[in-house]
Amino acid sequence: MSAMEMKGYFPMWEKLTAAQQTELSTAAYKQSFGKGQLVHSGAADCTGLFLVQSGQLRAYIVSDEGREITIYRLFERDICLFSASCIMHSIQFDISIEAEKNTEAWLIPAEVYKQIMTDSAPLANYTNEIMASRFSEVMWLVEQIMWKSFDRRLAGFLLEESALESTAKLKITHELIGKHMGTAREVVTRMLSYFQSEGMVKLSRGMVELTNKDKLGKLAER
Amino acid sequence: MSAMEMKGYFPMWEKLTAAQQTELSTAAYKQSFGKGQLVHSGAADCTGLFLVQSGQLRAYIVSDEGREITIYRLFERDICLFSASCIMHSIQFDISIEAEKNTEAWLIPAEVYKQIMTDSAPLANYTNEIMASRFSEVMWLVEQIMWKSFDRRLAGFLLEESALESTAKLKITHELIGKHMGTAREVVTRMLSYFQSEGMVKLSRGMVELTNKDKLGKLAER
Repeated sequence: MSAMEMKGYFPMWEKLTAAQQTELSTAAYKQSFGKGQLVHSGAADCTGLFLVQSGQLRAYIVSDEGREITIYRLFERDICLFSASCIMHSIQFDISIEAEKNTEAWLIPAEVYKQIMTDSAPLANYTNEIMASRFSEVMWLVEQIMWKSFDRRLAGFLLEESALESTAKLKITHELIGKHMGTAREVVTRMLSYFQSEGMVKLSRGMVELTNKDKLGKLAER
Repeated sequence: MSAMEMKGYFPMWEKLTAAQQTELSTAAYKQSFGKGQLVHSGAADCTGLFLVQSGQLRAYIVSDEGREITIYRLFERDICLFSASCIMHSIQFDISIEAEKNTEAWLIPAEVYKQIMTDSAPLANYTNEIMASRFSEVMWLVEQIMWKSFDRRLAGFLLEESALESTAKLKITHELIGKHMGTAREVVTRMLSYFQSEGMVKLSRGMVELTNKDKLGKLAER
């Protein structure tokens, strides 16, 4: 991987020594994931850091009963830290990561990254910033689940999906929405039917069309 | 603060330079908080890192409507990082911290800590580990709220309180339990009455007595 590209992921690149730069660039190799493919699963697996070049990843947790909730998403130029959770002892939780779209990523093996992070204050501090960003996203999620009713969360989710996909016609099943939000499919179906009766969406097989974004927006913000 | 004491908080103390050690030790000063006192509130406030010498702190978030939920607790030898959230740009959430018991703590001003962390890989990596620990606690909380029903969470909370206070007779109001768990007082009262009818607790004014810990334990673990 070129130094130029590396700088796009690591703004503190110039503060690494020449040897560290070479080591990171040489160790990074390209991986491709098809839509729906599992990129990382749980704590046993400590592949390394993924640097997303294109596509979209979803980080989620799974309950003992197989229920899921999306924790955050990673886009172009994002760094996926928890697929290398073994670089820190204190990471005591299991996150799964799957490709939501076809994804190209650079992989830096965990042991290489850990070694350089141990010696380099700039890289350690930057890693701190990445973790703090993810932490902020999880705290936002906690506030959502704790203080927001399901109708407001669902309205917010539909608008976010619509922005991500650049379309008002979402190809998404009620089951998948449930997996993102940590909710049973039935609960999603019931709320979507209510949204339809209020003129905010139009439902058809495998599709949710947003027909009144203003109203959804007001509900989400309320 | 003595180097000996500092080592108790920072296991990587010997890897700091002599100058860094002196700077940290000299900058740290003692603070006392009475039970119930607010130690830190929101993002505006960037006091510094608290090193807990004795007592107990509670970190919590507050909704716009004033509802609360406890995020984690800090005990003797713990380091409170988010009272110095300005040391990292990417910390984009507000945590409040209050003393649950009379607490003695050392305070290291944020700017002093940040300066040394910028230069020292060992301190930056150790700060990473502290943040990863808190992150793990928050992920545990997310799993609790998402996958566990309220009766199981409440049983777990009562057992934890009982262990922390070393007594089966908890001096705690239903309102305060609600604040820890992010739930309305009425919901707590209803569930505690059910627990009482099942012989697991005995309720009296400002007091919850755990009368069948085995049964509570089985409920919490279920």
